[in-house]
Amino acid sequence: MLPEVDNGHPIIHRATDYVPPRTWHHWLFGRPLTTADAPHQTIGKFTGLAIFASDALSSTAYATQEILFILAAAGTMAFGYVFPISIVIVILLAIVSISYEQIIHAYPDGGGAYIVARDNMGKLPSLIAGASLLTDYILTVSVSVSAGVAQIVSAYPELIEFRVLISVIAVFGIMLMNLRGVRESGAVFAFPSYFFVAMLYLTLGVGLFRYFSGSLGMVESPPSMDVAISVVAITPFLLLHAFSSGTAALTGIEAISNGIPAFKEPRSRNAGITLIWMAFILGSLFMGISYLTGHIGAVPSETETVISQLARTVMNGRGLMYQLVIWATTVILILAANTAFAGFPRLSAIAAKDGFLPRQMTFRGSRLVYSYGILTLALIASVLIIIFQASVNRLIPLYAIGVFTSFTLSQAGMTHRWWKIGHLKPGQELAERGSTLRFERNWQTKMAANGFGAICTTVVILIFAVTKFLDGAWMVLILIPLLVFLFSLIHRHYRSLANRLSLEVFAGAAPRATRHRVILPLSGVHQGSLEALRYARRLSDDITAVHVSIDPDEAVKVRQKWETWGEGVRLVILDSPYRLFIEPLLEYIEEILTHRQPDETITIVVPQFIPSKAWHNLLHTNTANLLRKELLSRPGIIITDVPYQVP
Amino acid sequence: MLPEVDNGHPIIHRATDYVPPRTWHHWLFGRPLTTADAPHQTIGKFTGLAIFASDALSSTAYATQEILFILAAAGTMAFGYVFPISIVIVILLAIVSISYEQIIHAYPDGGGAYIVARDNMGKLPSLIAGASLLTDYILTVSVSVSAGVAQIVSAYPELIEFRVLISVIAVFGIMLMNLRGVRESGAVFAFPSYFFVAMLYLTLGVGLFRYFSGSLGMVESPPSMDVAISVVAITPFLLLHAFSSGTAALTGIEAISNGIPAFKEPRSRNAGITLIWMAFILGSLFMGISYLTGHIGAVPSETETVISQLARTVMNGRGLMYQLVIWATTVILILAANTAFAGFPRLSAIAAKDGFLPRQMTFRGSRLVYSYGILTLALIASVLIIIFQASVNRLIPLYAIGVFTSFTLSQAGMTHRWWKIGHLKPGQELAERGSTLRFERNWQTKMAANGFGAICTTVVILIFAVTKFLDGAWMVLILIPLLVFLFSLIHRHYRSLANRLSLEVFAGAAPRATRHRVILPLSGVHQGSLEALRYARRLSDDITAVHVSIDPDEAVKVRQKWETWGEGVRLVILDSPYRLFIEPLLEYIEEILTHRQPDETITIVVPQFIPSKAWHNLLHTNTANLLRKELLSRPGIIITDVPYQVP
Repeated sequence: MLPEVDNGHPIIHRATDYVPPRTWHHWLFGRPLTTADAPHQTIGKFTGLAIFASDALSSTAYATQEILFILAAAGTMAFGYVFPISIVIVILLAIVSISYEQIIHAYPDGGGAYIVARDNMGKLPSLIAGASLLTDYILTVSVSVSAGVAQIVSAYPELIEFRVLISVIAVFGIMLMNLRGVRESGAVFAFPSYFFVAMLYLTLGVGLFRYFSGSLGMVESPPSMDVAISVVAITPFLLLHAFSSGTAALTGIEAISNGIPAFKEPRSRNAGITLIWMAFILGSLFMGISYLTGHIGAVPSETETVISQLARTVMNGRGLMYQLVIWATTVILILAANTAFAGFPRLSAIAAKDGFLPRQMTFRGSRLVYSYGILTLALIASVLIIIFQASVNRLIPLYAIGVFTSFTLSQAGMTHRWWKIGHLKPGQELAERGSTLRFERNWQTKMAANGFGAICTTVVILIFAVTKFLDGAWMVLILIPLLVFLFSLIHRHYRSLANRLSLEVFAGAAPRATRHRVILPLSGVHQGSLEALRYARRLSDDITAVHVSIDPDEAVKVRQKWETWGEGVRLVILDSPYRLFIEPLLEYIEEILTHRQPDETITIVVPQFIPSKAWHNLLHTNTANLLRKELLSRPGIIITDVPYQVP
Repeated sequence: MLPEVDNGHPIIHRATDYVPPRTWHHWLFGRPLTTADAPHQTIGKFTGLAIFASDALSSTAYATQEILFILAAAGTMAFGYVFPISIVIVILLAIVSISYEQIIHAYPDGGGAYIVARDNMGKLPSLIAGASLLTDYILTVSVSVSAGVAQIVSAYPELIEFRVLISVIAVFGIMLMNLRGVRESGAVFAFPSYFFVAMLYLTLGVGLFRYFSGSLGMVESPPSMDVAISVVAITPFLLLHAFSSGTAALTGIEAISNGIPAFKEPRSRNAGITLIWMAFILGSLFMGISYLTGHIGAVPSETETVISQLARTVMNGRGLMYQLVIWATTVILILAANTAFAGFPRLSAIAAKDGFLPRQMTFRGSRLVYSYGILTLALIASVLIIIFQASVNRLIPLYAIGVFTSFTLSQAGMTHRWWKIGHLKPGQELAERGSTLRFERNWQTKMAANGFGAICTTVVILIFAVTKFLDGAWMVLILIPLLVFLFSLIHRHYRSLANRLSLEVFAGAAPRATRHRVILPLSGVHQGSLEALRYARRLSDDITAVHVSIDPDEAVKVRQKWETWGEGVRLVILDSPYRLFIEPLLEYIEEILTHRQPDETITIVVPQFIPSKAWHNLLHTNTANLLRKELLSRPGIIITDVPYQVP
């Protein structure tokens, strides 16, 4: 407890000893954490890789297959292009990773595309970046979980009809874990992530050894391809289309830059090293899978994934090793959605703090996580899974546009930032909202790296938009501007609210109202209404009780009782021929409002009946609530509830 | 406007010129009616028969068939018992009708089983009667609509898969008509009712003529019987079982006695004549159908109704006449549900007025109908249709128990009433709640008639309960006591409420409170909260502003601004380490409550933000509402909303 301040204003600061009581919530989500517990909730590189990299790494489970799906249109001989396309994608990965490495060091407090664009490019680009990222986080959950369930279905084909249900249950499982909080989630995620990496390296190692030693055969009884194979020529358009599907492999590498504050100190260094590890693992896995897939004759299919075909060919059938690979892939894919569950709530909280999303998004729940963001993400992702029936192949055209838009904007922003840095004097510092700028010597090289990255990702967006437009990319191209519009609407509301409430333009206390009129609506005369009358008499001597008469017999009773109990207060009985209660009363109040003096305050004192059991509410029409709802929107009316509790 | 009363209490009685504005409601339901419009909404015998008799008459469309369904278990040769069983049922009809004729004259204000049992047998029997009738009204809607749709399906077998949907749509159509009000519904129902009677008499006339002239054949290609025909002997149990299914024909004859107030004056006479007409038409149609059905070899089936088989045999195939019979039957069956829509809301309003159902049931909507009752009925009946998949054969075991229970109770009540009348002195009058008793000379005969009726219907209930117990009657035998229990619970609540509020035990005004404490919760210091402060200062000099601090930076701002704008009022800042807002505030208020003086009033003044657009509410956590919800249940706290509107 702080001492009282000695300036005439007795301001008392009290610590509360309130501890939330134990409920089933604690069992499900863990015990509530105080705000002071927050700094402990950070993670090291090892856990960080598991949490933030699972999205990026797991995309190796479907990226190769999605390239094949497109190439299949030109027949199986087009499959030879898988490996070259993969190499191009890995080069792109390297470029983007270098760019992000620079962002991580520039923005130690978290440098998502939204923040980088906001500080360096202005409001509109930052909103586009935010909308793109939020869209892609949602799709990450839908795609990853659907792809994970596709692995299970590959191993157990009889589950195919339940894949939507299984996917939705998985989303809610991850949601629950995230509502518990980040560190404990990390513990859950660390083992499966590393197990997946180990199993995939093992599969690739055995596969490559058997391939070069000549003992690796072709896929036995491959699944039927669902794609109608027409005799389409292998055009540049087809190859670019396949390339854009494969870029799904890059989704998720931005996650670390958004999540820097979750790392242990020195956080930029820890996050940067994690990013390099991740890029290396991702690139090598993706290349390995694409290389072997081409040599065993795997085909794209909705019923069996390419990973499943690869694993049973390398491991000689569906034995224990096959099962381990499949389950490792399934689990990491389902957990990959966790990356989005770390990123989406954090980004929406940042955007909400800037006034572009509902303020509630900034509230942290009992476990210090952004509960609203987590719930929102789980809900929308589940809806998408249901609409697209958990088909990766139908979801993928919507995916990755958002991520590449944010890549471009953040790198373009960084390019501008380096230019600003290059024009600072040595020793000069420039504090922006998200970071502080200091002169660096090699700014030209770094600007070139980010600039080149921005150009590359812009080209990818154009390829993506053109080749995938009809497949579903148009939805995202409409959705992102819509989201930006929504952000602006929300922002305008908060700004006008702040202006309305601002004390800067406040002229000081208005003249004291001298007259106080009290209106007392009565449904009957009983102890409850007399308590309200007693309170009303404390407020003012100018009281009007009002009874809306639906039943003439009731009106006579009210009149008689009022003569006994009304303490001489004026009673107005309003006839209501249409048996309406609220409307005649509102009309009467409206009439009083039009005749009111400028110095007059009007208070409506409402006797409100409060039953002791909730179901008793069903036995009463709560006119007090209806009345409040109607009256609150009229300026200059104060509403007072005088509750009377009934046992 | 009445003159002001001259006793020191200026009580002003004002007529309101408020007329509800035109909306789409008027187009759907008709223009609102004033209470003064009510007496015009009565009906003559001709319309009365159409409205109140459609239920009873339409049951001829399925009663014969339901007898056949039971007899089928013993093979087709058992079908010979249909006509004898029907004769017994018609005799029962005559007995019950005579009883009801006496009730109608004894209770000109409406003499449903509920009222007769209440005035003559006490509370429990009246509640059982009420529960029975309400249950049966609901089943009337489900059975009639399902049977009507079964006729359509007989004529157009391809519609069989839509029968549940069609039935539910029909229920909501009837609901809409009833929300418009009784007279206009009468106009809609008069033509189909009479058309049905005419078509059925025509069919029976042609059928009987052809039968006696020897030109009536057997049903061509009869539908397959769905009943598994085992070699069951024709036992008394089987015949009683068939009889109890056939008694469904009697459902609905009580409707007129409930609806007497809807008739034009002299209403008892008009209602009584209508009842006799109805009983005669019902009896003759039912006997005719049962007689012919036995001679053409019609079989019970879920795919084609007996009426359809009869009509196409008599009318030589599915020509125009067949179509007219089928459609007449369909329409009257669907409209028969209307009887329940007239009876259910009226009965529930009576029970609600006595405090056994929620008071809202007594409210009449803009068209002077009991809207809540109509909506409730439509909803429950639709749910039953969906559960039983619109199968009459599956619904029928639940049906008729309720009606026969109410028959028994009302006739037993009447028997007691005659006994009371017989013991009055000539010229003496005894006013009860539902009617006035005067001595009558033939009271012994009349008592015998009602007593005999009561015994007959009791026997039917026992037969019904035994033979149909396992078919589903057990559900009703559980449901009715449950409903009676619910009525008692509701009644107890209203009674304890009346006691709590009664001014009989009111000791007069409590000692005037001398101290007034005001608590002002603040989320921030802005124009809205300062308006609330200004109002609080009008109420008292003892004000404590309270800020719950979730964010320390915010607390510093609040403190600084309060020093400038707080007018020297005490501010308490409560730390909230768990980021909760409501709980620490409640704890603080609780603390103040425990230390309060007996003469102290505590008012919480809540600044409430009111956005101009409804969607803006999504952008704010409405802590004012949460706080009100928590505080209203604590005695002795007054809550005042000071709204601040934002453009």
